[in-house]
Amino acid sequence: MISVTEALQHINNHCTPSKVAKKPIKKVMGMVLAADVLSPINMPPFKQSAMDGYAFEYSDDTTYMVVGEVQAGSSENIKLGRGEAVRIFTGARVPNDADTVVMQEHVTRADGCIEIKILPKPKANVRPLGEQITKGAIALEKGTTLNEAGVGFLAGLGIAKVDVYQTPKVSVLITGDELQKVGKELEEGQVYDSNSLTLQLALKRLGITEVRVSKVKDDLRSTTKAIEKHLKKSDVVLISGGISVGDYDFVQQALMDNNAKEVFYKVNQKPGKPLWFGYKGNTKIFALPGNPASSLICFYVYVWPLLKAQMGYQEFHLPRLRAKAKTAIKNSYDKTIFLKGNVSNGNVSVLTGQASSMLKSLAVSNALLIVPSNIEEINKGEYITYIQL
Amino acid sequence: MISVTEALQHINNHCTPSKVAKKPIKKVMGMVLAADVLSPINMPPFKQSAMDGYAFEYSDDTTYMVVGEVQAGSSENIKLGRGEAVRIFTGARVPNDADTVVMQEHVTRADGCIEIKILPKPKANVRPLGEQITKGAIALEKGTTLNEAGVGFLAGLGIAKVDVYQTPKVSVLITGDELQKVGKELEEGQVYDSNSLTLQLALKRLGITEVRVSKVKDDLRSTTKAIEKHLKKSDVVLISGGISVGDYDFVQQALMDNNAKEVFYKVNQKPGKPLWFGYKGNTKIFALPGNPASSLICFYVYVWPLLKAQMGYQEFHLPRLRAKAKTAIKNSYDKTIFLKGNVSNGNVSVLTGQASSMLKSLAVSNALLIVPSNIEEINKGEYITYIQL
Repeated sequence: MISVTEALQHINNHCTPSKVAKKPIKKVMGMVLAADVLSPINMPPFKQSAMDGYAFEYSDDTTYMVVGEVQAGSSENIKLGRGEAVRIFTGARVPNDADTVVMQEHVTRADGCIEIKILPKPKANVRPLGEQITKGAIALEKGTTLNEAGVGFLAGLGIAKVDVYQTPKVSVLITGDELQKVGKELEEGQVYDSNSLTLQLALKRLGITEVRVSKVKDDLRSTTKAIEKHLKKSDVVLISGGISVGDYDFVQQALMDNNAKEVFYKVNQKPGKPLWFGYKGNTKIFALPGNPASSLICFYVYVWPLLKAQMGYQEFHLPRLRAKAKTAIKNSYDKTIFLKGNVSNGNVSVLTGQASSMLKSLAVSNALLIVPSNIEEINKGEYITYIQL
Repeated sequence: MISVTEALQHINNHCTPSKVAKKPIKKVMGMVLAADVLSPINMPPFKQSAMDGYAFEYSDDTTYMVVGEVQAGSSENIKLGRGEAVRIFTGARVPNDADTVVMQEHVTRADGCIEIKILPKPKANVRPLGEQITKGAIALEKGTTLNEAGVGFLAGLGIAKVDVYQTPKVSVLITGDELQKVGKELEEGQVYDSNSLTLQLALKRLGITEVRVSKVKDDLRSTTKAIEKHLKKSDVVLISGGISVGDYDFVQQALMDNNAKEVFYKVNQKPGKPLWFGYKGNTKIFALPGNPASSLICFYVYVWPLLKAQMGYQEFHLPRLRAKAKTAIKNSYDKTIFLKGNVSNGNVSVLTGQASSMLKSLAVSNALLIVPSNIEEINKGEYITYIQL
């Protein structure tokens, strides 16, 4: 059995970005750029008015004859002589012969002429060609996580596709003959399956929406076949349950029969002790404990960083922060314990319902407290590390 | 023209949850419960083993004859006499005649009998019926935001549908004859449309994925008709551009022609001055400035809270935090200014590229700094309020 620190070190060693793919700009929100993106155009692509007003070639004169009008979107380049101006609107192309725009609120207009009441500075209210970015310059750098502004910025440069790190293909395999589907009648001895949904939704939070989910009977042959199938089509396989030491826990044997390489099995932690991590070829495999809360906690601590790293994130772990314990917290297990907690105003409280089967407390928790195996008690008021959920 | 504070007060007055709908559990991630959810079952639904081991009626005896086996999922209730035990597995139903489970690692087995080496405490490793929740008790309270654990918890109780606040139907109407679609050639005077995509993706972050987007020509008749159509089918209408004072800005007139009620028009802020907010019937309307960064900043400050409130969130504004200014920050405008910034280690820096047309800085920004209209300068090292993006 290895420590949590050792297990995390193993996970970190397998945290590498996955393949690069060219994706349409509409689909890359939350993804990470796998290459610098160069601007194909100058932005703005022409000398652009930043105001509704009048464009003219700057001079000390305050009277101009209005010889035309340029709407936004118009390609027209009206010639201007000395003492001439054009009516212009925000976003419109400023004529080559003009360099300054005066706001419409700062002029009076009569008889086809304007009288400027407040003379702007030379070149005021004009966005020079390429002011925001010039053609060929780096628009966004490799490693940038694309938010709505980033995607919009690239779209504004006319970029239709970009190179991003691919979102991993993940599959979920549920074991446990006692599990019944939600919506069906519960028979004596059965419980409802929640892990398939919980894991799918946790994956969705990462932007991983295409998840292959299947359920397998608790026998070695079926489990081996199901794992074989998932390994072929997935970058990451999550198996729920069947990894303990019971006579009907076939997952470890089935993984060995599939020639999967074990990196570690069993971590000195509570909950989540029987966690298995390994790989076959490029496919990473987690066998998670079947208990709902254990399964999700192992997901947050070990699966989340691996997936985020595959998606190209440089910071792939959930944030680890520190806050003061509101009450004393005991650890009588000689293991690292993860506790469902709540943090508010810098104070951490431990929620009731810590058993590995209990999801309710995670539903209302915003922090997963970590008490290391070598610490028996954290006193009230002492700092404790937690994972921000 | 009203102040930012007044504008936010108006928005807050319109921040009410939208209608309640019964939704399948698979679709409610990120939504808010509109009613307490009661558990339809006891959880666990039977006395359940928490370990792989042997179940027996507690006594000081350490030798038991193994008279059967209970797999997880089995409905069997094996009768146990004195001195008898059953082989049992994690999650399986503990026979009525047993109250304690000993871990398999703590026994030796031979000749159909077990010898307990480490006697557990009475009732150890048995989860009592209803330990996690009893039938009829509140599983999750009204107002709970459903995360993956919450949804999983409800699924584990066999709950297939819940009452949640509906996600608002939002439509986006883009104005601006100068706008060209991404993927097409840019003609002289044109720029690429980015607002339709930026707003759609910002809505997606809120879980609003079904968004009706359309583009309208810059004339009053078309704009009025397009607004009329969107008003009929939406809870919230976002209009991009056409709200300034230019001769081709028809949005305000078109809104009046639709009998929309104006709550406010123009806010003493930079960027985003020509923001319009109003409603018709139950449909709320925002006319956002057309400049990409102004549009998105108005979305974060004013649209985001209204949508979150409609979704039933109690805290509907983006978090407002405080940090120290890395450099002096000037405000020479007599307006509230929003600046794209970065916060790290409690220090705030202002990014370059603050113009209202510039999205790039928002792409790499994690904070929107707020300098109120009555403050001319924030000194280096002074605290500044920011909106966490």
